[in-house]
Amino acid sequence: MSRFISPKHAALTPYVPGEQPPGRSFIKLNTNESPFPPPRRIADAVQAEAGALNLYSDPESTALTQTIANFYGVRPGQVLMTNGSDEILNFAFLAFGDETHPFVFPDVTYSFYEVFCTLNQVPYETIPLREDFTIDYKDYCGSRKHIVIANPNAPSGLILPLSEIEEIVRTNPDNVVIIDEAYIDFGGESALSLLPKYENLLVTRTFSKSRSLAGARLGFGIAGEGLIGDLKTMKDSTNPYNVNRMTTAAGIAAIEENEFFMDKVRTICAVRDDTAAKLRSMGCLVTDSHTNFLFVEVPGLAGARLYELLREKGILVRHWNRPRIENRCRVTVGTKDEMTAFLKALEEIK
Amino acid sequence: MSRFISPKHAALTPYVPGEQPPGRSFIKLNTNESPFPPPRRIADAVQAEAGALNLYSDPESTALTQTIANFYGVRPGQVLMTNGSDEILNFAFLAFGDETHPFVFPDVTYSFYEVFCTLNQVPYETIPLREDFTIDYKDYCGSRKHIVIANPNAPSGLILPLSEIEEIVRTNPDNVVIIDEAYIDFGGESALSLLPKYENLLVTRTFSKSRSLAGARLGFGIAGEGLIGDLKTMKDSTNPYNVNRMTTAAGIAAIEENEFFMDKVRTICAVRDDTAAKLRSMGCLVTDSHTNFLFVEVPGLAGARLYELLREKGILVRHWNRPRIENRCRVTVGTKDEMTAFLKALEEIK
Repeated sequence: MSRFISPKHAALTPYVPGEQPPGRSFIKLNTNESPFPPPRRIADAVQAEAGALNLYSDPESTALTQTIANFYGVRPGQVLMTNGSDEILNFAFLAFGDETHPFVFPDVTYSFYEVFCTLNQVPYETIPLREDFTIDYKDYCGSRKHIVIANPNAPSGLILPLSEIEEIVRTNPDNVVIIDEAYIDFGGESALSLLPKYENLLVTRTFSKSRSLAGARLGFGIAGEGLIGDLKTMKDSTNPYNVNRMTTAAGIAAIEENEFFMDKVRTICAVRDDTAAKLRSMGCLVTDSHTNFLFVEVPGLAGARLYELLREKGILVRHWNRPRIENRCRVTVGTKDEMTAFLKALEEIK
Repeated sequence: MSRFISPKHAALTPYVPGEQPPGRSFIKLNTNESPFPPPRRIADAVQAEAGALNLYSDPESTALTQTIANFYGVRPGQVLMTNGSDEILNFAFLAFGDETHPFVFPDVTYSFYEVFCTLNQVPYETIPLREDFTIDYKDYCGSRKHIVIANPNAPSGLILPLSEIEEIVRTNPDNVVIIDEAYIDFGGESALSLLPKYENLLVTRTFSKSRSLAGARLGFGIAGEGLIGDLKTMKDSTNPYNVNRMTTAAGIAAIEENEFFMDKVRTICAVRDDTAAKLRSMGCLVTDSHTNFLFVEVPGLAGARLYELLREKGILVRHWNRPRIENRCRVTVGTKDEMTAFLKALEEIK
């Protein structure tokens, strides 16, 4: 940090995204991307916008917002589109958190939550997952803090049932409960059905995982008009034209092509379950994933070493040098062939 | 605002962007877009990326950063690419400002600066422009505050000579001086040449004006490695994959097609000067614009009324209901035909 940076950022350690090596010479199982490119229709929709790029995008994202509202059966005023779901999450910590309005979240979850808190000078508490990486929902009931829970959680891949999510939302009426549903299309029940009952619920989503658009950067939040209005104020106070024309076109086309993506989701889930079964038969520990990744431990082999040995064999996975999960690696579910190569590499390593 | 928003945002009034009516049934002279679409090459570059949208964009924007560094003759570590230049500006207020590190800027300038300050709880002081809308650079020398100056300034269109910019930067060695060069391709001398001498200087740029890519959302900052490192920390703590793959491709192609855009810039400047001369001959007051817009007063006609009458005739311009500039409208320089239509409408109104 330079001598010019505000002292308030002294404790800030930025989020470290997974490696993005140029090209795909690696089998890239480290950032939970879809292994399937989007259909041709997306490219056509994007190209059709290119001739109008001299004009700003619609700061209200009217057409895309309406498309999402129709698809999920909510009102347009309940939706805010963002430059990836990291942006809607950042807006939420910025809007609702402050020194006297702390957040609480699990100790093992998306590691960006603590970065958002530190950046925005929001105190936070983490609650340990159980030994088996499950969340005890009772830990969050009546917390008197804002709450963020990824459901399914990462990197565990485990889900909370909707009834337990509802108990958390219901018992925290004066705090915002964010349910980060980045992986919900791969398993679990969405909290969207709770929205008519709870004005304190914010559901966040992304086009990066189940909709093959990680490189287009598109996410959104759905909540009551009150919370969405606050988040829109954050958007209009930082970057009013946050979603560009090409991404807007890609997003609308991706909803219109929903069946294409849901078919790929089914394929990914089948490959995931098959890979998990084979890993278990090899003696590996694997959580019951409801996502597009597996959280794998090879008994007797440190997670960092597993990461390195796989990398030497041309396979990139994700490892965190953090307490409780240092013996595991998170492995994105790729194509059937990619997972066969992964399993073969693992056989050679063991 | 909902009852959940942090009390720290009580005073926040978001930025209000210019209207973006769907289509272009209006002659749209209200948001300083280029009237010229980008060349075919941009669409091709964008479409070539569409098949890889399932993979995240490079969080380091390595290729685009290198392209910009080569073009402006700086090191890659001196460049940070962002989702429009509003994002690099927000990062700067977030990184460098706080309760004991205020900002100072002119009273009449890009109205987003005060929003960034309010959002980030950064106190700010505004210094009145002279009666003729010029900046007295001596007002900023030795200010002991962070400084942001748009050069050319908006909506005045007026420039500060480089020697006066240098005096501001030189006499504030312990504060950051941001020179917002959104419009520099249309006139004035860039402060980039000062970078080797001053570690406290940040120059911001956008592809939205002279490069016809407002709808792609691409901006950047150039400074010493120290300031850029701080700004990158803000980026990696809010939205690491902030620039998507399609915009990246468009940006690289736009630099490769530089001569196309500089030719359009020359056209716009010629149309601007011709329009300004005609406005003056009609008795209007027009500042000496070095940008792609004109700041126009029709004596005896309130700015709000001018805006309304032009709108009724299908011409959108920008008006602010703010002290000192309420009698003016900002009129983007469009094509020759668009400006002919604007002048004709004005004749009818007068």
